[in-house]
Amino acid sequence: MSIIQLEDVLAARARIKRAVHKTPLMRSQKLSRMLGCRLYLKAEHLQKTGSFKARGAMHFLVNDPEPGEVYTTYSSGNHGQALSWAAEQTGKKAVIFMPEDASPAKVAAVKGYGGEVRYAGLSSIDRMNACLAFEEESGARVVPPFDHENIIAGQGTAMLEVLEDLPHFDVALVPTGGGGLLSGNSFVLKTLRKNAQIYACEPEVAADVKASLESGELKSIAYPATIADGLRNLRMGERNWAIIEEHVDGGLTCTEAGIRGAMRLYATYQKQFVEPSGACTLACLMENRDRFAGKTVVVYVSGGNIALPDYGRLVGEDEGQSG
Amino acid sequence: MSIIQLEDVLAARARIKRAVHKTPLMRSQKLSRMLGCRLYLKAEHLQKTGSFKARGAMHFLVNDPEPGEVYTTYSSGNHGQALSWAAEQTGKKAVIFMPEDASPAKVAAVKGYGGEVRYAGLSSIDRMNACLAFEEESGARVVPPFDHENIIAGQGTAMLEVLEDLPHFDVALVPTGGGGLLSGNSFVLKTLRKNAQIYACEPEVAADVKASLESGELKSIAYPATIADGLRNLRMGERNWAIIEEHVDGGLTCTEAGIRGAMRLYATYQKQFVEPSGACTLACLMENRDRFAGKTVVVYVSGGNIALPDYGRLVGEDEGQSG
Repeated sequence: MSIIQLEDVLAARARIKRAVHKTPLMRSQKLSRMLGCRLYLKAEHLQKTGSFKARGAMHFLVNDPEPGEVYTTYSSGNHGQALSWAAEQTGKKAVIFMPEDASPAKVAAVKGYGGEVRYAGLSSIDRMNACLAFEEESGARVVPPFDHENIIAGQGTAMLEVLEDLPHFDVALVPTGGGGLLSGNSFVLKTLRKNAQIYACEPEVAADVKASLESGELKSIAYPATIADGLRNLRMGERNWAIIEEHVDGGLTCTEAGIRGAMRLYATYQKQFVEPSGACTLACLMENRDRFAGKTVVVYVSGGNIALPDYGRLVGEDEGQSG
Repeated sequence: MSIIQLEDVLAARARIKRAVHKTPLMRSQKLSRMLGCRLYLKAEHLQKTGSFKARGAMHFLVNDPEPGEVYTTYSSGNHGQALSWAAEQTGKKAVIFMPEDASPAKVAAVKGYGGEVRYAGLSSIDRMNACLAFEEESGARVVPPFDHENIIAGQGTAMLEVLEDLPHFDVALVPTGGGGLLSGNSFVLKTLRKNAQIYACEPEVAADVKASLESGELKSIAYPATIADGLRNLRMGERNWAIIEEHVDGGLTCTEAGIRGAMRLYATYQKQFVEPSGACTLACLMENRDRFAGKTVVVYVSGGNIALPDYGRLVGEDEGQSG
């Protein structure tokens, strides 16, 4: 018996449909020609809050079996923004635990959606412990970033949209950190189109999912030095892995320079502003293009949240410089 | 008797429809809230070649009463790229005259579309003279960047698309350099919706159209120091002015810092990569927001072509720094 059923994802879509965007599936003739395939981009950087995380966070809130007034999490990135937004939209309060050295841009984004920021140490363990202590003391509901059925079903709604717009394709490339997006979308794809393929995309310095798929065991990595800050976490969730192990065809990796190159391609040819984690899939396609020659490929662009000085630094330097 | 008729623009649309995109009219809830109006963006940065110029160039080529094999122009920017693209699409040859100090990115873009680059001096006069000498000697057809009926009708097709997607709105804001886009679009708007307003948008250091509208005479300016390189030309075309004088309600200006701020807003909230000339209209709205409070406003985003190091420099620095 699977952790989620197709009915759960269909129900999630109905529950969040008015709150989130159906994002465009963009065709790119220029990039298709350049890469020798028929390329489509699932534009989740145009989702509410600038990433797919809005889907899962909103679904958790509107389908919580024990609804509360205060929701909290320990993820400082896109999930923290998404939860703050979802709480604001539904009349709830969000408390986001962030590291003491969090970037002013991320703090401002959370506050901009009405979230309350609390600082807790520097490590993710510090943050998680502070968040769980807050849950204990206040009764606030913790919204995990990926390892939860309602998050997985929420993220999976993206694939329902892809299949509506493009009923048949050969391959989907999905970025993976904790595995929320990949588990939900691989489950939907393999349930509805068992012959289509789906690959996990990661920076080569953060390839725990690829290693897990190749060994058949859930692997961890040490803190990776990647510019893709959304893909830095050390280990998938247990529920995510159970789904990914069964439904994902393999792992692809890319270099840091490849991620920067993909961000540049998005800006130059698509006029789209994409964060490093969102550009990882195109980088993996570029660095594995022979495998996908002539195929119809759906690349997930997972987010577009990056501070402008960081963006300028990553895309603005000479192409020859390292990532 | 007007220089163009509505029938000319309708015919232009039919002629170029398969070659150019119908670009999206994007709704922006975040920017609408921020600016106190109902804001729509006509996304011409997503047009073929990354700017609206593809419309006019293609229309010139497919509706040339004396068709030739070689087409030429002396515009080094978006029009040069658009003509190179249109020639490649229609099996013609394009020869683009560029200044000796043209940026490598612009040269590469023209060549990328199959255009031949010829260098001619440093000033726009040098370029124009070289281009006209080439016409004389070779019989190549010169495609003017704005001062031509077929260019005006081609650019005007954008407004037909806007009115299809949004039949009623209060105000359109259109950037203007030579006046090709503004003349075509103001003609269409005032012909079909005489109560809607349309404003010319320019950097305050390049406000020849505003000065012309206020004085009722076609004015020139000295070479302006603006980051909006598409809006630097010194004087509208005669045909453009004749239409603009009759149909445009007034001129708005913006600061250089405002253009940079608008580019940042597009990146941060719309995840769109926009060039300075394309961001001028939003900057004019921001700096004149009281006039448009509560109104439904269509802002033209005219292009997204800017080299990445330049983009990084313009958006990446602290907001406090000057333009």
